[in-house]
Amino acid sequence: MRTVIKDGTLVTASGSSRADVIIEEEKITAIGSFLPGFGDRTIEASGKLVLPGAIDVHTHLDMPFGGTVTADDFTTGTIAAAAGGTTCIVDYAIQTPGGTLQEALVAWHKKAEGKCAVDYGFHVAVTDLNEKALNEIPDLVKKGYPTFKVFMAYKGVFQIDDAALLKVLKKTGAAGGLVLVHAENGDVIEVLTGELLAAGKTAPRYHALSRPPLAEEEAVNRYIAMAELSGSPAYIVHLSTAGALRLVSSARLRGLPVYAETCPQYLFLSIDRYNEPGFDGAKYVMSPPLREKGNEDHLWAGLRSGNLQVVASDHCSFNLKEQKELGMNNFTKIPNGAPGLENRVQLMFAGGVVKEHIDIHKFVDLVSTAPARIFGLYPQKGTIAVGSDADLVIFNPEAEFTLSSTEQFQNVDYNPYEGFRGKGKPELVFSRGTLIFEHGEYTGAVGHGRFIPRQPFSVI
Amino acid sequence: MRTVIKDGTLVTASGSSRADVIIEEEKITAIGSFLPGFGDRTIEASGKLVLPGAIDVHTHLDMPFGGTVTADDFTTGTIAAAAGGTTCIVDYAIQTPGGTLQEALVAWHKKAEGKCAVDYGFHVAVTDLNEKALNEIPDLVKKGYPTFKVFMAYKGVFQIDDAALLKVLKKTGAAGGLVLVHAENGDVIEVLTGELLAAGKTAPRYHALSRPPLAEEEAVNRYIAMAELSGSPAYIVHLSTAGALRLVSSARLRGLPVYAETCPQYLFLSIDRYNEPGFDGAKYVMSPPLREKGNEDHLWAGLRSGNLQVVASDHCSFNLKEQKELGMNNFTKIPNGAPGLENRVQLMFAGGVVKEHIDIHKFVDLVSTAPARIFGLYPQKGTIAVGSDADLVIFNPEAEFTLSSTEQFQNVDYNPYEGFRGKGKPELVFSRGTLIFEHGEYTGAVGHGRFIPRQPFSVI
Amino acid sequence: MRTVIKDGTLVTASGSSRADVIIEEEKITAIGSFLPGFGDRTIEASGKLVLPGAIDVHTHLDMPFGGTVTADDFTTGTIAAAAGGTTCIVDYAIQTPGGTLQEALVAWHKKAEGKCAVDYGFHVAVTDLNEKALNEIPDLVKKGYPTFKVFMAYKGVFQIDDAALLKVLKKTGAAGGLVLVHAENGDVIEVLTGELLAAGKTAPRYHALSRPPLAEEEAVNRYIAMAELSGSPAYIVHLSTAGALRLVSSARLRGLPVYAETCPQYLFLSIDRYNEPGFDGAKYVMSPPLREKGNEDHLWAGLRSGNLQVVASDHCSFNLKEQKELGMNNFTKIPNGAPGLENRVQLMFAGGVVKEHIDIHKFVDLVSTAPARIFGLYPQKGTIAVGSDADLVIFNPEAEFTLSSTEQFQNVDYNPYEGFRGKGKPELVFSRGTLIFEHGEYTGAVGHGRFIPRQPFSVI
Amino acid sequence: MRTVIKDGTLVTASGSSRADVIIEEEKITAIGSFLPGFGDRTIEASGKLVLPGAIDVHTHLDMPFGGTVTADDFTTGTIAAAAGGTTCIVDYAIQTPGGTLQEALVAWHKKAEGKCAVDYGFHVAVTDLNEKALNEIPDLVKKGYPTFKVFMAYKGVFQIDDAALLKVLKKTGAAGGLVLVHAENGDVIEVLTGELLAAGKTAPRYHALSRPPLAEEEAVNRYIAMAELSGSPAYIVHLSTAGALRLVSSARLRGLPVYAETCPQYLFLSIDRYNEPGFDGAKYVMSPPLREKGNEDHLWAGLRSGNLQVVASDHCSFNLKEQKELGMNNFTKIPNGAPGLENRVQLMFAGGVVKEHIDIHKFVDLVSTAPARIFGLYPQKGTIAVGSDADLVIFNPEAEFTLSSTEQFQNVDYNPYEGFRGKGKPELVFSRGTLIFEHGEYTGAVGHGRFIPRQPFSVI
Repeated sequence: MRTVIKDGTLVTASGSSRADVIIEEEKITAIGSFLPGFGDRTIEASGKLVLPGAIDVHTHLDMPFGGTVTADDFTTGTIAAAAGGTTCIVDYAIQTPGGTLQEALVAWHKKAEGKCAVDYGFHVAVTDLNEKALNEIPDLVKKGYPTFKVFMAYKGVFQIDDAALLKVLKKTGAAGGLVLVHAENGDVIEVLTGELLAAGKTAPRYHALSRPPLAEEEAVNRYIAMAELSGSPAYIVHLSTAGALRLVSSARLRGLPVYAETCPQYLFLSIDRYNEPGFDGAKYVMSPPLREKGNEDHLWAGLRSGNLQVVASDHCSFNLKEQKELGMNNFTKIPNGAPGLENRVQLMFAGGVVKEHIDIHKFVDLVSTAPARIFGLYPQKGTIAVGSDADLVIFNPEAEFTLSSTEQFQNVDYNPYEGFRGKGKPELVFSRGTLIFEHGEYTGAVGHGRFIPRQPFSVI
Repeated sequence: MRTVIKDGTLVTASGSSRADVIIEEEKITAIGSFLPGFGDRTIEASGKLVLPGAIDVHTHLDMPFGGTVTADDFTTGTIAAAAGGTTCIVDYAIQTPGGTLQEALVAWHKKAEGKCAVDYGFHVAVTDLNEKALNEIPDLVKKGYPTFKVFMAYKGVFQIDDAALLKVLKKTGAAGGLVLVHAENGDVIEVLTGELLAAGKTAPRYHALSRPPLAEEEAVNRYIAMAELSGSPAYIVHLSTAGALRLVSSARLRGLPVYAETCPQYLFLSIDRYNEPGFDGAKYVMSPPLREKGNEDHLWAGLRSGNLQVVASDHCSFNLKEQKELGMNNFTKIPNGAPGLENRVQLMFAGGVVKEHIDIHKFVDLVSTAPARIFGLYPQKGTIAVGSDADLVIFNPEAEFTLSSTEQFQNVDYNPYEGFRGKGKPELVFSRGTLIFEHGEYTGAVGHGRFIPRQPFSVI
Repeated sequence: MRTVIKDGTLVTASGSSRADVIIEEEKITAIGSFLPGFGDRTIEASGKLVLPGAIDVHTHLDMPFGGTVTADDFTTGTIAAAAGGTTCIVDYAIQTPGGTLQEALVAWHKKAEGKCAVDYGFHVAVTDLNEKALNEIPDLVKKGYPTFKVFMAYKGVFQIDDAALLKVLKKTGAAGGLVLVHAENGDVIEVLTGELLAAGKTAPRYHALSRPPLAEEEAVNRYIAMAELSGSPAYIVHLSTAGALRLVSSARLRGLPVYAETCPQYLFLSIDRYNEPGFDGAKYVMSPPLREKGNEDHLWAGLRSGNLQVVASDHCSFNLKEQKELGMNNFTKIPNGAPGLENRVQLMFAGGVVKEHIDIHKFVDLVSTAPARIFGLYPQKGTIAVGSDADLVIFNPEAEFTLSSTEQFQNVDYNPYEGFRGKGKPELVFSRGTLIFEHGEYTGAVGHGRFIPRQPFSVI
Repeated sequence: MRTVIKDGTLVTASGSSRADVIIEEEKITAIGSFLPGFGDRTIEASGKLVLPGAIDVHTHLDMPFGGTVTADDFTTGTIAAAAGGTTCIVDYAIQTPGGTLQEALVAWHKKAEGKCAVDYGFHVAVTDLNEKALNEIPDLVKKGYPTFKVFMAYKGVFQIDDAALLKVLKKTGAAGGLVLVHAENGDVIEVLTGELLAAGKTAPRYHALSRPPLAEEEAVNRYIAMAELSGSPAYIVHLSTAGALRLVSSARLRGLPVYAETCPQYLFLSIDRYNEPGFDGAKYVMSPPLREKGNEDHLWAGLRSGNLQVVASDHCSFNLKEQKELGMNNFTKIPNGAPGLENRVQLMFAGGVVKEHIDIHKFVDLVSTAPARIFGLYPQKGTIAVGSDADLVIFNPEAEFTLSSTEQFQNVDYNPYEGFRGKGKPELVFSRGTLIFEHGEYTGAVGHGRFIPRQPFSVI
């Protein structure tokens, strides 16, 4: 079957053009101006934007954490993704201490297989960095898992020391992979947390005080130093502070292949949220925490100037009821994380493009093209080009929306952006040529989503 | 007539795909996979790259300077451009002191009209920044001349003071234009030059000593300050030093719309060239001068990291014989400038992509897409997209070349890159759908090149 | 006659000791513990600090400005100095355009001779930097005038261009002198002032908007660049912003002999003062203007860390009535300047030492020793040492004071620090062995103050 | 007995004066100009400098290390100190893992008591930072041991993690103490060392490669971050790189009480020393290692600008024969350290003052006054003032010297500065009023040196 998306404005990371897009089977086969009747099906896109499906490279679905499990699994999460214009996710398969990396992948494949609305890949989160785990890396890169996450935080649990960090950087870089880092100094957090709890400071807002900006900035500086010593590329997940951004910028200016992502929460929310009444501050308990107002201006400048390359959601949803409430009397017991998978694209369009923080091409780059390139999905994903997967979003830039937990697909009882209003909605979403979301309804088949092995890292 | 470029690898600033490109009249009308016989003419491009025609936004053709005129006029210069894969230039129309900006444009249009092998536009070089000239700016922006160059160097000749600089930034920014600056401190140069000449230091190599890096860095810092005060965007031409680059990076990180170009000469040549025997150092007398070895590493990192957005040639050719020789006994009499229009694309491919300083997409961005976007030529030029001008280069990435003055189209008696060897050659060049260069021969018609009015500036 | 100052705590820039100080004639002749009856006169200083007389290297007495003359002349100004613990000033002799530097000195010597309560020297303020003036410099350095001030502000009046700046730096440095700069970009100020006035913004508070921090920071950066190119030392007067401080710090870290002074007004007052009711904002119209709150924290850190070496007053008093009022309808007509000579030492003690921004040794260094060393008065002035002038202050660190225009010696109708309360008062002040101020009363003889030729500059 | 040092030039950190100094018992009792016959003993110092005895706050005497013991004990070391003009040292008492800090002090007191030629104090080197050790700190501060050293290097041996670092900073700062840090990232060193040894790279020169500048810079950045989080002052021992210096400068500019020392070896020697023939490179095996040529220019600028406050020797002598040779086949077995106690003052005078890197006052500050003030010895030591200990050096600035192992007091078989020639020699050295070194001969009594309890830290 041949589908024609007619007369839309095609937007890529480097330009726009008004043209028809032809889809055959799962692929884009032509772009041009074609006669009526050329396709078996014609979708009128005049006045609409045609975007490459967005890619969210930082999600946590069906993930156990502190005795509970994230509210979203691979079905609810990927339907929410589709609803938000995201047609591919890369989730984290988490090593069990004592277990192998391979075992983590087996477990996560099992969670996802047959349950996904959109395509997916896996990073491996390394939590027990022994010699054996190190030696699994080259093979996993070859098998389509080129990205490995390690933690400079969570002392005594996931945290690795600098020797391990340097080793994993060397091993992974040599194998064509990329190390992703959660960059906060876990020792600092441990000490400050201990002091806060000892002083009876247990409310959600103390979470932020236990993880000051300097804890992140120090870790980012250290990670960049390890990366420079290793000769390998480096990627920082969920960067949240102006100070850390400056360090990334400085490294890049020196020519180092250092990359960083930020998340909508650090662009649209700030630390005062922790002062919401009652226990509501817990909605925003995530790591790194929300930062002081004003910080976001620096992050926008970082996105605009190319110093930050990716916006991902770090989607990690827990219900306020029963889940977040586990930490009612102790902020350290609040499951960390917040939802974002469904709203990321709209937030970046309405809050970024419409507000003139970034232009439309940078927007596409941040939510789709750069993630695809850095994470080895390109050119299969991340652009509108002949031969690429027909992952496409027909996006109405004029449609108004208000975010609310009462109208969302993600399976969680609140929305951190509740009440956010703006313009720009995905109207139709194609995944590999199949329409899976139409005018507010999920119309796809669960299980359509397919595992996508990814290519080794190459410098962009 | 419908032309099919068959099966090439299309490379844009954000991606690659293997597909056919359809040209009808002057435009690209489709990209896809088409049946044999679809076109009236088929050009086999299998194994070749198909690049958007390169754009050189910094040239000086048929320009008077110090009692002589550049060796290249609009005919020889644009044929050389075509030979090198460049299908559009933006030259500088230079105001005569006492004259209007409009008069400069009339004069330069007369120089170019009917003589060009490729398309062209004009910046206005403002040399007498009076109130009247300021007031011409808004109208010129509307007429397709959105870019205005001013000089912080050439004291007593072109140099403007900071008050004028601030005013022209405010006026131009408000009108939707962009101010381009030659950023060297002319006062410093005047004093140092005076000292050198007084000491009998007249050889070409003293040119470099009269214009130290600090003269550029100071000017760049000052220009950025003026731009910040004005609220307008800012662009620095021919940035040559690591120190100046750091200032640009810092401004961008703070969110300022500051842009900068560098040139192949600062990436491939260094200050020791001034020590070539006899008067040969004069070949490299240009402003800013060549810099210390090692500096180029910083510039490459600046290109890679996005801190430098454009590579232009600053093509300004004077023959060594008779022209450069005017300064045989006094370096200040050597006409400033060197050729580069013909070799820019090949240098950046062979010396940039092949040497792994930049990837192929960044290469296309630097020589074509970013210039098009910053200078208001996009999407007409600068990409391979439906609706864009069919300015295309069929580029053989494996073909070997050696640069030499004995085999060049540019009308000048030397080549500063003499003997440079590498891989990558334009084999066929299309300008608005017309083949104008084929396998080493210029096959176009002089006068084919057309004036392209440009759009106002918008932040990228 | 031999005077013994008994049992005080002697404080110098590098230490404290409890001892007697012996004064014979004009000099300190011994420090130690002496038997009762050793002196002809004994002054009990137990519980008191004995400080070297403070030195104010930035004053403007009997200075014409904008059709009026400063409220303080050399008599009222130097009595105020004495009252505040300052026993030596360096004032500015200002060249008349067209006149020589020597003529300026003759004129200022005439203003001061026989009228001073404390010792004095002169800088030369160069306002017409022609070749002849340049050539006067070496001889003036030899005659005891090693410091020359030039202006980067006051376009069309005092402002010199960068060529002149570079030349005066080279000439002065070679002669053993030091160039002092008023670092604000006069072009920026001219443009912004023009815009403000054109918009009818004439009130005192617009003075600050016409001279933004960036105007200072740009000028400081440029001055440092000129100094680096010249190979000469450099000094910045009345530095007021955190940004400028960072530039000075960076230059010093690179090893350049760059020095800077700040003033109490930038440490204790901020921009909100311009919003005082009616025309009262005019009290604070000075250049550079007061800055945003928060800026002072950086300046204190700059003093503490050694990046700022001197605190001077920039005393330049005009009465609010009749003088400041000249600018009632136009802020540019308000005579620039404010009093500070009388209060500098107490402000720095009460607001600096007592508040723990600086320690007592740094305090002595900033107000006395470093000025003496940088300005060629050391070791005659600026310390408590055998052989030095007996310029001494018996200072009661516990005595409380409140600053007010109703109780001041300076001849001006307001005090910018009105109501400032703190601890620390000069009780007795010796100038070359003579008691000139005792417990609130000036007891000296006008004319006692003597011209002090100063030594050439040497790097500290 | 009253001694008169007649007519010398007294030099302190803030000035010079020509005067007599009177010594009675152990103290300076007067400074002035006295009649002949005033003293019981008169020492003619005309034409000589009179300096406060130097203080070396970083020595390791009688210290076990890797199965051997330093070549110098408290007797040979302190005689060498005296010979070099150093009249007080602060050595490191090293905690035994499992032992208390108090026990370390007992052990080191025993090593020193009755064996010292000059006065001494102790830092405590904390190697096992448990809760009990933390709790000993406040009491030790009160007892005269206000400074505690911890290690960011020597993984698995002395290295503490960031949580411990933050805790010791908080505890020590609150108690009025100061934490000293060996700032090199031990994890990096471990990994690189492992790689080098695995590759058979065992020669002395690989020691430097195992500890790259970045290992120091990262640690300094981290230490400053911990200090900022703790609110406590911070001190970095033996800082060796330009990069680390920049971090210290930046911290100080932000107002943090961060201090750093460098050592003569980093000012006068560079990494090429490791290439000396045979095993001679082992002479320079110390940590941090010698750095690239050029680095020292930055350190000199750091000293001059006040960003580095102290020059100490890190004297830690091992004979090349038998001791250094333990690492003949493995650089990690070479005992780390080199002698410097005897030569520090002369190196800094001849190589610093005479070469015009620093002036004479800064020299006194770096080797005597600042160490005294930062380490709580002031005003008892570190200056020439009434009431201070009569620790004085009569220094001949014109006397020539050549350093050599054949003419030294330190008990070690080589001198890292062998052949260094310059001007400036201590001729007479007084310790608390007693002449202990005269014209090349040690004339004191071993055991004269006394333990000096030190004051708590206060910010300078």
